[in-house]
Amino acid sequence: MDLMDKLVSLAKRRGFIFPSSEIYGGLSGCWDYGPLGVELKRNVKEAWWQDMVSRHDETMVVDDGPSAYSMAGIDSSILMNPRVWQASGHVDGFSDPMVDCRETRNRYRADQMVVFGLVENDQTNKPIDDNTILFAAPGELESTDEEELLAPHKKQVSKIRKALGSFKMVQIPGALSDAALRARTLAPGASEPGTLTEPRAFNLMFETHVGALKDSSSTAYLRPETAQGIFANFKNVCDTARVRLPFGIGQLGKAFRNEINPRNFTFRSREFEQMEIEFFCKPEEASMWYQYWRNRRYNWYIGLGIDKAKLHLREHEKNELAHYARSCADVEYEFPFGISELEGIANRTDFDLRQHMEHSKKDLRYLDDLEPDKEKRRFLPYVIEPSAGADRATLAFLCDAYTEDKISGETRTVLKLHPRLAPIKAAVFPLVKKDGMPDKALAIYRELRKQFTTSYDEKGAIGRRYRRQDEAGTPFCITIDGDTMTNGTVTLRERDTCEQIRLPATELLAYINERLDE
Amino acid sequence: MDLMDKLVSLAKRRGFIFPSSEIYGGLSGCWDYGPLGVELKRNVKEAWWQDMVSRHDETMVVDDGPSAYSMAGIDSSILMNPRVWQASGHVDGFSDPMVDCRETRNRYRADQMVVFGLVENDQTNKPIDDNTILFAAPGELESTDEEELLAPHKKQVSKIRKALGSFKMVQIPGALSDAALRARTLAPGASEPGTLTEPRAFNLMFETHVGALKDSSSTAYLRPETAQGIFANFKNVCDTARVRLPFGIGQLGKAFRNEINPRNFTFRSREFEQMEIEFFCKPEEASMWYQYWRNRRYNWYIGLGIDKAKLHLREHEKNELAHYARSCADVEYEFPFGISELEGIANRTDFDLRQHMEHSKKDLRYLDDLEPDKEKRRFLPYVIEPSAGADRATLAFLCDAYTEDKISGETRTVLKLHPRLAPIKAAVFPLVKKDGMPDKALAIYRELRKQFTTSYDEKGAIGRRYRRQDEAGTPFCITIDGDTMTNGTVTLRERDTCEQIRLPATELLAYINERLDE
Repeated sequence: MDLMDKLVSLAKRRGFIFPSSEIYGGLSGCWDYGPLGVELKRNVKEAWWQDMVSRHDETMVVDDGPSAYSMAGIDSSILMNPRVWQASGHVDGFSDPMVDCRETRNRYRADQMVVFGLVENDQTNKPIDDNTILFAAPGELESTDEEELLAPHKKQVSKIRKALGSFKMVQIPGALSDAALRARTLAPGASEPGTLTEPRAFNLMFETHVGALKDSSSTAYLRPETAQGIFANFKNVCDTARVRLPFGIGQLGKAFRNEINPRNFTFRSREFEQMEIEFFCKPEEASMWYQYWRNRRYNWYIGLGIDKAKLHLREHEKNELAHYARSCADVEYEFPFGISELEGIANRTDFDLRQHMEHSKKDLRYLDDLEPDKEKRRFLPYVIEPSAGADRATLAFLCDAYTEDKISGETRTVLKLHPRLAPIKAAVFPLVKKDGMPDKALAIYRELRKQFTTSYDEKGAIGRRYRRQDEAGTPFCITIDGDTMTNGTVTLRERDTCEQIRLPATELLAYINERLDE
Repeated sequence: MDLMDKLVSLAKRRGFIFPSSEIYGGLSGCWDYGPLGVELKRNVKEAWWQDMVSRHDETMVVDDGPSAYSMAGIDSSILMNPRVWQASGHVDGFSDPMVDCRETRNRYRADQMVVFGLVENDQTNKPIDDNTILFAAPGELESTDEEELLAPHKKQVSKIRKALGSFKMVQIPGALSDAALRARTLAPGASEPGTLTEPRAFNLMFETHVGALKDSSSTAYLRPETAQGIFANFKNVCDTARVRLPFGIGQLGKAFRNEINPRNFTFRSREFEQMEIEFFCKPEEASMWYQYWRNRRYNWYIGLGIDKAKLHLREHEKNELAHYARSCADVEYEFPFGISELEGIANRTDFDLRQHMEHSKKDLRYLDDLEPDKEKRRFLPYVIEPSAGADRATLAFLCDAYTEDKISGETRTVLKLHPRLAPIKAAVFPLVKKDGMPDKALAIYRELRKQFTTSYDEKGAIGRRYRRQDEAGTPFCITIDGDTMTNGTVTLRERDTCEQIRLPATELLAYINERLDE
């Protein structure tokens, strides 16, 4: 089993992540977090919120930042006035190229499918060569081996062979190119060639209708990103939170994209949670702040225990940049399914605020009246956007923590999660179910439980109890034994090293709290 | 200004709650939480999660509960397989009666509108009495005074008067009754009578389409409640979390209802957040657990400071009960706009699990194999559901906390929020901006900030700084003055009493932490 299969299996078996509405066969691209998963994901989000927003020190000039800055949080709604998405460009531009099969009525993402067809000559619309099968495959496909790619399409291939006799394959790598689109294509499952439509833009926003009428006047969208909720509230925050430039607004929340091909477990899903900051600053300071946030966000993952060797900060090439972005960098993690983006940090200039100012006709300019010798000036701030995915981060922490090692000759599975992220911080065991040990263990369990999530377990051999907690990622296991009853000390066993230390039960809280702060 | 207007104004001015996408005119029934509001609502949800789920002591037999029980949390997706909503009855039954006006094309909730029309005789379809105007008004209308109710419809009334000469009014209270439906009705804004359709069921679930196709096969719903995500995961939790009956599963999350008439600020909105528990137990213990949860949930609000005189626990009459509910009670709060439901606690029997077992064809029965002398038995547990609204609770805490009092002759506005719920726990002020006070104050601010949300303010007179924190509901203000510099003590001022105590700066953390735990 490869790592990803093992992880999916552990996630299911121990209650981290389940397919959504699994008893009904699920819903593609949607996932549920089980009892351990919900605590893990909550801890990831809480760490982000505390570190970035609620416990940010607004008076401190940070080492690599140009000045002190303040942070405010908001929580905007998922359903918003649809004009927000006109202004942001999502109504017109947030789409993937799609092709329909006229025969099967199925729809495919044009850049992700394998298409068979006869290559046509541009001018004559006649096949260039009756013995050539055009074969367009997406760049993202894992294999480039023709045999392997064609395996799921055996029936079609044999039909084509029947119709054409011998033929040669021509692969057009990368995408469904223009040539392919003009080809008389054969879609998967279709019996005749020539059934695919020209590609059309397919908007990735989920649509719904708000209010009693069901027409275009009532169309609303599930937000495809939380960012626009921040831009739409820029003026409200300026007016109420006593903030001065530079400052950031942070938000945690669900977003939705109607991905045609959700994949890689929770990595690319249709419903997901974002952790976004829009950081507003003077245009002339934007480059400095961009550098600051790139580094700050990269280091946040490292601080929470991600293996530095697997975490990359990749600066986008100029030709990768969106039209509004001055610069952009991705924090990427080496997932078992490939190197993929955890977070993007972009200098979006004043593009978003300018769009909203134009569409809403509200003056969103910031009034700079603090510099004593200068004239007051009104301007649109520039924006640095560190935009992270809570589900992706959770998945990366899980992948990174997953370890199999040998303990006294036996293989164990252990999640080496940072103590801050661990769903359960401590587990308390009475060594045996007698001699007052359960009562003593319960007293300690109840004391710890007031401060952090703690588990109590008196069932089975002590080794099995350790293993259960190892799989859950619990960093500290505390055992109450005969000595506890006489001298008040307990053993505390470290998850990663399996080392045991002995300390007075009265010092447990302080010890664990200190370790959680590391 | 009445209390509600004052509260909405404070919420806007200080950044608690804004209308969603306000710069575009908003979206009815959707609200955004600003910098202070997001912390308040997070604290409400966190208090619920900790008290009910993550810090629940699963080994303790509670005073008024039949036995110890464990709790697990989950976080299920908003988009689910649509068969969930067929099984739950929402596709067929989650609707309001709606009438359309054929003339204006407006749609109204039949039980919430005022309708004018001629009363017809059931048999002959002729007006009973040409001089009688039928006048159906909803039960929920605040006034029963005819003059007041008719005021917004002056034009129509005068048209009817013109057409009919003198007439008498007959009010049918409570709803648009059968008689009204058979009447030749006149809708608000319409010029002719007879334009209203028969009432039709209007489903309150928001619909969308998942995947590339937009037809009935791809229809999905935004969940109208989080509860079904728990039922759909019942088996998964049983299989992974080592739970035994009785146990509860808790969930926090967004839900959506396409209310025809959202109203009362955040109280009845289209997008809202729920805090739901499904508590599973043996059928024979359900009544006991129902009593337990009624009391536990009522007391939760009291423990967080809600005025007992304004909080009511109302048992439903038998004729109010849904067909699947054995018993139900509402926790109600006296809002400025009337007594309204904060939370419902219901004994739902095994209705939901039975429905899902039937529709999914999966065996959802629980295997009871723990009682040593009895035969193993398989059965569907009964369910007690305490279902609360996070936005409603937040609004109730805000209303309850809002106070105007006189401090040395001056009126002040203060939010007397429980310290656990207060957005900012402490504020630190240097008395003046010199003599080392700002540095000392910053050092204390930084120390406190590591543990809880803390604010630093050095601007303006000390009285003004207190007022700002009073409006934000900050329970503790700490002032650094000349004495601090010589003997290390600070003044700590209590928000509610304005009393000041003097204590060593080194004791601040312990003092505030203790008060937060109260």
